Amino acid sequence: MADKQFVKEIADINADFPQWYTDVVLKTQLVDYGPVKGTMVIRPYGYAIWENIQKELDARFKATGHQNAYFPLLIPKSLLDKEAEHVEGFAPEVALVTEAGGEKLAEPCVVRPTSETIFSTMYSKWINSYRDLPLKLNQWANVIRWEKTTRPFLRTSEFLWQEGHTIHATREESLAETIDMLHLYSDFARDVLAMPTFIGQKSEKEKFAGAEATYGMEAMMLDGKSLQAGTTHHFGQNFSRAYGIQFLDKDSTHKYVWQSSWGVSTRLIGAVIMAHGDQRGLVLPPKVAPVQAVVIPVAAHKAGVLDKASELAECLRAKGIRVELDARDQSPGWKFNEWEMKGVPVRIEVGPRDIEQGVVTYARRDTCDKATMPIGGIAEGIASLLDEIQSNMYSKSLAFRDSHVKLAHNMQELGKILDDKCFAKVVWDRDPACEALFKEKFQATVRVMLDEEPFQDVCTACGRKGDNLSVALVARAY
Amino acid sequence: MADKQFVKEIADINADFPQWYTDVVLKTQLVDYGPVKGTMVIRPYGYAIWENIQKELDARFKATGHQNAYFPLLIPKSLLDKEAEHVEGFAPEVALVTEAGGEKLAEPCVVRPTSETIFSTMYSKWINSYRDLPLKLNQWANVIRWEKTTRPFLRTSEFLWQEGHTIHATREESLAETIDMLHLYSDFARDVLAMPTFIGQKSEKEKFAGAEATYGMEAMMLDGKSLQAGTTHHFGQNFSRAYGIQFLDKDSTHKYVWQSSWGVSTRLIGAVIMAHGDQRGLVLPPKVAPVQAVVIPVAAHKAGVLDKASELAECLRAKGIRVELDARDQSPGWKFNEWEMKGVPVRIEVGPRDIEQGVVTYARRDTCDKATMPIGGIAEGIASLLDEIQSNMYSKSLAFRDSHVKLAHNMQELGKILDDKCFAKVVWDRDPACEALFKEKFQATVRVMLDEEPFQDVCTACGRKGDNLSVALVARAY
Repeated sequence: MADKQFVKEIADINADFPQWYTDVVLKTQLVDYGPVKGTMVIRPYGYAIWENIQKELDARFKATGHQNAYFPLLIPKSLLDKEAEHVEGFAPEVALVTEAGGEKLAEPCVVRPTSETIFSTMYSKWINSYRDLPLKLNQWANVIRWEKTTRPFLRTSEFLWQEGHTIHATREESLAETIDMLHLYSDFARDVLAMPTFIGQKSEKEKFAGAEATYGMEAMMLDGKSLQAGTTHHFGQNFSRAYGIQFLDKDSTHKYVWQSSWGVSTRLIGAVIMAHGDQRGLVLPPKVAPVQAVVIPVAAHKAGVLDKASELAECLRAKGIRVELDARDQSPGWKFNEWEMKGVPVRIEVGPRDIEQGVVTYARRDTCDKATMPIGGIAEGIASLLDEIQSNMYSKSLAFRDSHVKLAHNMQELGKILDDKCFAKVVWDRDPACEALFKEKFQATVRVMLDEEPFQDVCTACGRKGDNLSVALVARAY
Repeated sequence: MADKQFVKEIADINADFPQWYTDVVLKTQLVDYGPVKGTMVIRPYGYAIWENIQKELDARFKATGHQNAYFPLLIPKSLLDKEAEHVEGFAPEVALVTEAGGEKLAEPCVVRPTSETIFSTMYSKWINSYRDLPLKLNQWANVIRWEKTTRPFLRTSEFLWQEGHTIHATREESLAETIDMLHLYSDFARDVLAMPTFIGQKSEKEKFAGAEATYGMEAMMLDGKSLQAGTTHHFGQNFSRAYGIQFLDKDSTHKYVWQSSWGVSTRLIGAVIMAHGDQRGLVLPPKVAPVQAVVIPVAAHKAGVLDKASELAECLRAKGIRVELDARDQSPGWKFNEWEMKGVPVRIEVGPRDIEQGVVTYARRDTCDKATMPIGGIAEGIASLLDEIQSNMYSKSLAFRDSHVKLAHNMQELGKILDDKCFAKVVWDRDPACEALFKEKFQATVRVMLDEEPFQDVCTACGRKGDNLSVALVARAY
């Protein structure tokens, strides 16, 4: 299906990365713009990636003792107002329902921008005793945040995400949950998205409104910018005090619960595109690719070709491989281009000569190598090839990232590193004034603080010694 | 976890069915009331049922060539206004976002009550040629309809559903899709929810706003009332003309597409509760039960009991059975009651004497029978017992339904049938005045028209002969 708003060419990935991104997401039909400013329609090819992400993450959540639930979209405005920092952080972005059922509402409702307030409200009704804890819930939902500048997947007025909200009897437990989920996310990014990440605590300035501490997972995009790909928050008792979530502990006293929340969103699709793509378009990791292998008959009119192609596709499908047989009228060359652009990991060509020789020709999307494989045992062959592609994509991303992270001993070095489209590790004394300098001079921010020993005894920004020096990752970011 | 708003007793199912329903849904923690009027929080036990419904339906949708996508929640009000009947039907129920990002919106947005308008808008951008057709999309989403009287699952201001929206090159194809999906729903209800249904066309009065024809699936609840459990709509070209969805056909002329939509919602959870429950609480069909079997150790303090119980649970889990081991402190009797109330299909008791004899005692929730089963081969034994329970629950529901449907030859008979908490088959001349009589006299409605030969040559309502006589199902309804 060629859209009416068909994009003719994909912009040069090196010369104009933002335009390359826009061209790719539209041309491969991952997404389209919705009629309301900043909203997106996630088309089947994009949604299938999200479904694969959901399936993998959901299994990991359940395996670690979380349960899914669904909380209402609409939140009375007064509920949002209960946690002071939280409302201050989110109020500028909320959408308000003021009329419904033909009448003006006595109290306007906020369309959830995030659901701490409503989870906390319900938790305060449900929790009695330490026996009810921990309670570890997650929901898959849509949220609305009215953003000024939007881009498909990366920043949209509405997006899909999961938000976990957990409550615990002790601070140690809720903090452990916050850190465990950060690791769950980064393991997932590594194993499923083939994307290495940096994880660590966010600065005070960058933390979530209402949190005691926020932790982030940052991924390097091909243009050297960082993308915040997931966050986990430790609330301490901020929300439990504001919403009255108390329990009777073993020692017969009432205590406030300790709380965490954590989320990743459809933004991950943008991360996959910008971490792996190339001039030809998408390059999808097999584990999230909607189509893992495409079978294209060559000289399809010749006797036996289409039958053989169809038989091979069926054989791969039986092995659990997501396969598509492209038997459309177009020429093989046209199809090769289209499936390359769509980032399908393996293309399998079946022609009369291949059949005669008992082989197929295949092309890997990650390396663009072509080779042949015997038809006997093809399902195992392709399955193991997909594993190899998954693993190769991770190695390639890791090598790219590692060669694009440099130590900045002073501000001059920092400027050069960032201009070279790299991430910088800096030593930072935790002074907000130094953090502000990164932004002011280089439009860069502290992405996360790393669990590493300082590589010098002075702050990269101000050059002064300090007793609170940390290694921080500084980068320009999406 | 015992909620603070703990319901002490379940009301008498025969004396006060509505209160029984409310008690059961709250006490089994399927659901709770949200802070905004008419909204619900779907708690983990309820949401797990929905996940099982989703998984089964989604596989059936995909197997019949549908793809998932996601369309925006917010729809510009002017888009809703394009199809005249549609806006008239939905305008009274919509919620409006009038402010966002701290500013009054130039044009208010409707929070989707259903998505024909936005699917149609995007389809008009995407479709060029007959090669692009059919396009068969579905989305899993939340919708808002501002309802005056609400009840958890049955009628709520926000609910979760799936909505399929398909476009086709010919009327025959879109009509076939509309009918096929109706059958898909009723097969699903039979095979998964163990719930027999009646399917057929809705009357003009009951059809969807903007549809040419609506088809419904109606299920009998234990109180003899009907619940509309799913609908499919044929739009003809109503929306394609209003939204300009045209394609270039093989004959080189531009034509408007033919369109269908269809949906089921979290209402199905309410249907399961009211079709199968009893005085003790829920009775869940194994295929949607979040917990299919619970293992309860008896005299758990005795050596080996807990280990054996845990080993059995693991053995069932390995077989793919959703099993829970209840090793909490409470007494076995307390646990039996709780799991019965929660409708778990099979309870397995493991005590010292059982272990000695190499058996377990099990209790079926559907028949309340107790028996023993050898521990050797227990996974196969329980798996086949679950199949038997699933099938028995369907037979029981079918027998109940068939004994509660009667022919009404005239209005006096109709009144008696309805007062006996039965469904009536009537002969109806399709006159809206006769339909109005059912409502006026008996608060009953035409649920669907059945594909059956009239059993008399006069209309049940007016007693007159006519050449347009149909058999219709008349019942009181949710």
